Amino acid sequence: MSNRPMINPDLDLVLERVVPVRPELVWKAWTEPDHLVKWFTPAPWTTVACKIDLRPGGIFSTTMRSPDGVVIPETAGCYLEVVKERRLCWTDALGPGFRPNGSAFFTAMLLFEPEGTGTRYTAIAMHADPIARRKHEEMGFHSGWSSALDQLVTLMKGK
Amino acid sequence: MSNRPMINPDLDLVLERVVPVRPELVWKAWTEPDHLVKWFTPAPWTTVACKIDLRPGGIFSTTMRSPDGVVIPETAGCYLEVVKERRLCWTDALGPGFRPNGSAFFTAMLLFEPEGTGTRYTAIAMHADPIARRKHEEMGFHSGWSSALDQLVTLMKGK
Repeated sequence: MSNRPMINPDLDLVLERVVPVRPELVWKAWTEPDHLVKWFTPAPWTTVACKIDLRPGGIFSTTMRSPDGVVIPETAGCYLEVVKERRLCWTDALGPGFRPNGSAFFTAMLLFEPEGTGTRYTAIAMHADPIARRKHEEMGFHSGWSSALDQLVTLMKGK
Repeated sequence: MSNRPMINPDLDLVLERVVPVRPELVWKAWTEPDHLVKWFTPAPWTTVACKIDLRPGGIFSTTMRSPDGVVIPETAGCYLEVVKERRLCWTDALGPGFRPNGSAFFTAMLLFEPEGTGTRYTAIAMHADPIARRKHEEMGFHSGWSSALDQLVTLMKGK
């Protein structure tokens, strides 16, 4: 695949920003559970557990806790593409070993491109239909992914 | 992943046979549309079209015609693993570019291992739950995939 997938504006949501953290550190933040739990969920929500088996077919799963302490177990997702420090793709349509899950919400494609001393960070959420895209937008995709990215930058900037 | 995925007997259907065709030719039969349309669908059904973009994220789609001429357009699926002449994995849970499809039925994992002058051929159909597995079994997975494999052998044996 080319590095830039085709965006379908009727089906995709996109967050693109340049952040002052090098791609190597953005990659670590996304692929090491000890880092990920510290930034992945916009506060006051928290991520209380994370499973990462970083290979196509390997598990990607996070467990979140609401501000009032309710733990929401997440459907285990699956990595599809793993290109070190550049590109990471996972979906909740499949679980570990590529087994279909009972339902699908989205596939996430993350691109980390060097830009100056930082990273051009592109997160694409791909949906099956406009209804799912809209639902994700109304759930707060843009503000949520952007707040989480702010947390990632705060966490990794000094490393 | 190891070459042999874990089988879950509650969720998977498996066809395993040794066939007198070398892995290179089994691979061609599965990955070249001109071959695939000639064996993929048990007669008297036919495959009238096939799209193959042989890379993770690339399309795998077939269009079938019933004995009385009804054309059944298939949901476009997507390759997940492509290991030349040895291993091919695709799913209907995702379409091209890993975009989720509206529904998922199964992920197919095909293993082609050299055995004597032929191939140990293992086809694993992975489902989300026992209901989907049972539905696939009742649709005739074992006889259908076995008949199609017979057609593949007849087609490729003399090549």
